[in-house]
Amino acid sequence: MDFDLIREVAIPAETKIVLLVMDGLGGLPDPQTGRTEMETARIPNLDRVVQEGICGMIYHVGIGITPGSGPGHLALFGYDPLHYRIGRGALEAVGIDFDLGPQDVAARGNFCTVDDGGLVVDRRAGRIDSDTCARLCAELRTIELPGAELFVEPVREHRFLLVLRGDGLSDALSETDPQQVGVPPVEVAARVPEAQTTAGLVSTFVARARDRLRQHHPANMVLLRGFARWPDLPSFPEVLGLRAAAIAFYPMYRGLAKLVGMTALPTGPSLSDSLAALREHWGQFDFFFVHYKATDSTGEDGNFQAKVAKLEEVDAIIPELLTLKPDVIMVTGDHSTPSTYRGHSWHPVPFALRSRWCQPDRAEAFNERDCQRGSLGLFAAAEIMPLAMAHADRFTKYGA
Amino acid sequence: MDFDLIREVAIPAETKIVLLVMDGLGGLPDPQTGRTEMETARIPNLDRVVQEGICGMIYHVGIGITPGSGPGHLALFGYDPLHYRIGRGALEAVGIDFDLGPQDVAARGNFCTVDDGGLVVDRRAGRIDSDTCARLCAELRTIELPGAELFVEPVREHRFLLVLRGDGLSDALSETDPQQVGVPPVEVAARVPEAQTTAGLVSTFVARARDRLRQHHPANMVLLRGFARWPDLPSFPEVLGLRAAAIAFYPMYRGLAKLVGMTALPTGPSLSDSLAALREHWGQFDFFFVHYKATDSTGEDGNFQAKVAKLEEVDAIIPELLTLKPDVIMVTGDHSTPSTYRGHSWHPVPFALRSRWCQPDRAEAFNERDCQRGSLGLFAAAEIMPLAMAHADRFTKYGA
Repeated sequence: MDFDLIREVAIPAETKIVLLVMDGLGGLPDPQTGRTEMETARIPNLDRVVQEGICGMIYHVGIGITPGSGPGHLALFGYDPLHYRIGRGALEAVGIDFDLGPQDVAARGNFCTVDDGGLVVDRRAGRIDSDTCARLCAELRTIELPGAELFVEPVREHRFLLVLRGDGLSDALSETDPQQVGVPPVEVAARVPEAQTTAGLVSTFVARARDRLRQHHPANMVLLRGFARWPDLPSFPEVLGLRAAAIAFYPMYRGLAKLVGMTALPTGPSLSDSLAALREHWGQFDFFFVHYKATDSTGEDGNFQAKVAKLEEVDAIIPELLTLKPDVIMVTGDHSTPSTYRGHSWHPVPFALRSRWCQPDRAEAFNERDCQRGSLGLFAAAEIMPLAMAHADRFTKYGA
Repeated sequence: MDFDLIREVAIPAETKIVLLVMDGLGGLPDPQTGRTEMETARIPNLDRVVQEGICGMIYHVGIGITPGSGPGHLALFGYDPLHYRIGRGALEAVGIDFDLGPQDVAARGNFCTVDDGGLVVDRRAGRIDSDTCARLCAELRTIELPGAELFVEPVREHRFLLVLRGDGLSDALSETDPQQVGVPPVEVAARVPEAQTTAGLVSTFVARARDRLRQHHPANMVLLRGFARWPDLPSFPEVLGLRAAAIAFYPMYRGLAKLVGMTALPTGPSLSDSLAALREHWGQFDFFFVHYKATDSTGEDGNFQAKVAKLEEVDAIIPELLTLKPDVIMVTGDHSTPSTYRGHSWHPVPFALRSRWCQPDRAEAFNERDCQRGSLGLFAAAEIMPLAMAHADRFTKYGA
């Protein structure tokens, strides 16, 4: 979306918008039946959203490009993911619910194994267990650096998050992970002159970490990559004039919502937890991003029938969701995860929007083949928020 | 396509991609039957590609814009033809299989007739025959210029190609063709200061050509236009990570493929020559651009039935092509050439892609009306390569 244009035409209103994101929604046909997961599922309530609404197919990054979760969600929130990039380190922070701020530089860390000569022999330190990782992170956290605050947080197994907090830090640093064994870790280097100080801090951290870890074979060294600052994204609530809330259980999605300025509400893992959070906070917000994960995980597992069942579970909550009378409801996904493909894919994702102001179109059912017939055609996910705003009477006209 | 993005996500794979271009593919209805050439032809094998694949309609330059062969093909190869322009002189070089290099400046030349006062009386020298043209080119080729190598190659009738090769040459030169009779040829001028030397060389060439041609009435002078350097296009094989081959008989299409870095394979004019080349080199390349000319020439001739017959000939080779088991096959054209229109046109061109990973859509037959119903809608031809790469499992995901 065009932020300047949106700011210009956005007006206050009392209307409510719900964006229900089924992670990894789109699929491919079961070779036996020729029908996709969505075509197989009995989802009459989602079908009714399509019948009463407008629909189309969305792509999040570009034609043929498979989105990661970060770019997929940013696009749904209206941000062109090719323009607004979230560095790997920042995404790692988001993924463990670490509140990254504007003074921070984050990096992905690995515990690794080096031999007596200092050469890397295992880039993952034999995948130490998460408890060991947490213990070693606590040890590294006591390192002191001049002029910067230090955070070392366990992620999982051999992976951790490093955050430096201080004035004037830069993320223009080269990685220390050599990406191969038999060579020493790479010395960190500033890629621009302004990053010299930060490079010095990181170098000191690495040297002290080596000392602290010496006795902790196989996790006797660290490798760092993906240095990234807090991505300074325009504020979703400010640009759109919406009090915006996220109802998401997993840290990654809560974090992405927080990065654009949404309030992440407390919730549990189930759909009824999501409904309860929605009901409880209905009066306090104008926009709700509701995230549902299981459609993606079942797709990643290659479990076609389980994905079908998860779609049917989502379908079952739609009537109750509609009793809240949202002025606009959008149902879609952040990317496709076909069960036959067992992973994120580039395939466009069905999208439907229902409000009282929908132009009629020919789509009848919530699936790939039918949404292709929708009036919206194939379009950029970053345009769904302007559509929602219009259908929620939250835009005035452009020009006289 | 976005070259930086593609470089970022492209990964190695063993898969094979075939792009079969039927020149001038799209058509318009026969007024008698109301059916286009593609709707009239019996093309069951191409229809099956559509049924098993995804499809849509492509535009190469922009809505309503008729592409020349250069921009049409560049778009199919992924290059936005509004951004990547091939100057007229360079295209002329490509059209006669002249290997234009980075040190070259090429121009289109005409032999013309001037009267005793030096005024142009015929801009085409009475369209002298091609043999005379070749003889005069050989004569001009003996001209020597200080600091530049000179090539003068016959094209056809009164047309020739002039190439200067040397260090620091510029194509920022004004044309010498006055585009009218009754006036003298225009003196070449540098359009920027850096082109001064090149302007001097061209001016010397023109003066010496006038001397050499004095006795060769009606071809007693030359006119030059379309000065163009070698278009420094990003390399298709490098950007996409594909070993890429072109199977095209006509010099123009071989040349276009070579300009983007493809290897032009030896082949003959017939479809079975193309198939033979494909079979012979199948192991050595990942991508094959196969060009078929007759759909365009029959359209240009206004011969509806002949174009129908040529489509059926292409259809007949599809089963054999598929025995090679390409992971992705794309069938489309570089522009429309409706037989009723007798020339290149702006009409969008049917496009179909078949792979094992196709999202189902509603199109059933390979023609304009059915491909309009395809899941891809109306889209830019420069996006077909990213689509092919995705369907060939040659892209990793974008962002985490």
